[in-house]
Amino acid sequence: MVKQLRAARTRQALVLAAAEIFSEDGYALSSLPAISRRAGVSAGALHFHFASKDALAIEVESEARRSVERLVADRRQSAASALHLVVTVTRELLVAVATDVVVRAGFRLSVDPSRKSAPGFGCWWRAWVCEQLLRAQREGELAEGVSPDRVAAVIVAATVGFGLIGAGDLISSQHVEQFWSLVLPQLASPTHEFAGAARSDS
Amino acid sequence: MVKQLRAARTRQALVLAAAEIFSEDGYALSSLPAISRRAGVSAGALHFHFASKDALAIEVESEARRSVERLVADRRQSAASALHLVVTVTRELLVAVATDVVVRAGFRLSVDPSRKSAPGFGCWWRAWVCEQLLRAQREGELAEGVSPDRVAAVIVAATVGFGLIGAGDLISSQHVEQFWSLVLPQLASPTHEFAGAARSDS
Repeated sequence: MVKQLRAARTRQALVLAAAEIFSEDGYALSSLPAISRRAGVSAGALHFHFASKDALAIEVESEARRSVERLVADRRQSAASALHLVVTVTRELLVAVATDVVVRAGFRLSVDPSRKSAPGFGCWWRAWVCEQLLRAQREGELAEGVSPDRVAAVIVAATVGFGLIGAGDLISSQHVEQFWSLVLPQLASPTHEFAGAARSDS
Repeated sequence: MVKQLRAARTRQALVLAAAEIFSEDGYALSSLPAISRRAGVSAGALHFHFASKDALAIEVESEARRSVERLVADRRQSAASALHLVVTVTRELLVAVATDVVVRAGFRLSVDPSRKSAPGFGCWWRAWVCEQLLRAQREGELAEGVSPDRVAAVIVAATVGFGLIGAGDLISSQHVEQFWSLVLPQLASPTHEFAGAARSDS
């Protein structure tokens, strides 16, 4: 039991160290010795848990994705509308990118040119935003003439940009609020009481 | 003379090949042998022109920046206002990222985690957008309560996001137009006849 606990802790230390190094240096320049050193773990212990750098990256990516899926699940019940859910989740995703190194690494790996992985976080995020905007359209939340696909592309582009620049501390949550306060009045249908609702829920 | 011309052509072939490989694989995984092979040039000829991969990247970055500066200079005269100039240049920058491999590589190198270069294209772009928005504010083009700094962050984030995602052909100019049509009505002062002007100038 103690042994299992210790193994789980070692594994978690490795995932954290890998996330830190992936997000600082990018995938290509991250080395297994640097990761085991950062985790305070022997090379042998690393290889016991992860067969390769790819295996570590896959674990970081899945953990990041699970965190974001949890974040979505937590907000789904309380969100007053589909548009509302998109706004809340975007905000919280960017907070997670800034504060949780595993989410940040998962996010950055998905746009790292040296990691040509299977469809990563970026694809999932784009599909999710698109799905929510289609739902918003069906439920009459979007202004006339707004294309869910194009607006999804705008939201995804802004999220990717904020996520990438944000790690350098140049972006604060004020910037994300500015994005929504510029975009929402054109996006929401006139009957959708968005401005007030969007601000009071977080 | 013929010799100089041939040298200039070899140099240009190397810059182009480097830009292609940097933007496909990222800086860390790009190798000098792959670049000389792609350029159809011997390893010796590469080393005659560029002492290192870093020297090649610096040349790609400067050429990309010169292209964008030319693009700005070309539009400065005809733009009806500062806000106008920002919209036009953003559009044309994203067209250049999609169609000109040197601009695309310069853009991608500036957010490549494996290239911790001197302040790159991203910094220059952010400073330029901020400067134009401050000018727009001084000239009464911005709506009341709009913060030039925050709006600059939104525009830069969207540009970075579009530029990164766009290389995968998922983003068309329609998406960029969608961004501006969402953002401009909140951004421009009510007396700024933007919507019409923004659409007719390109």
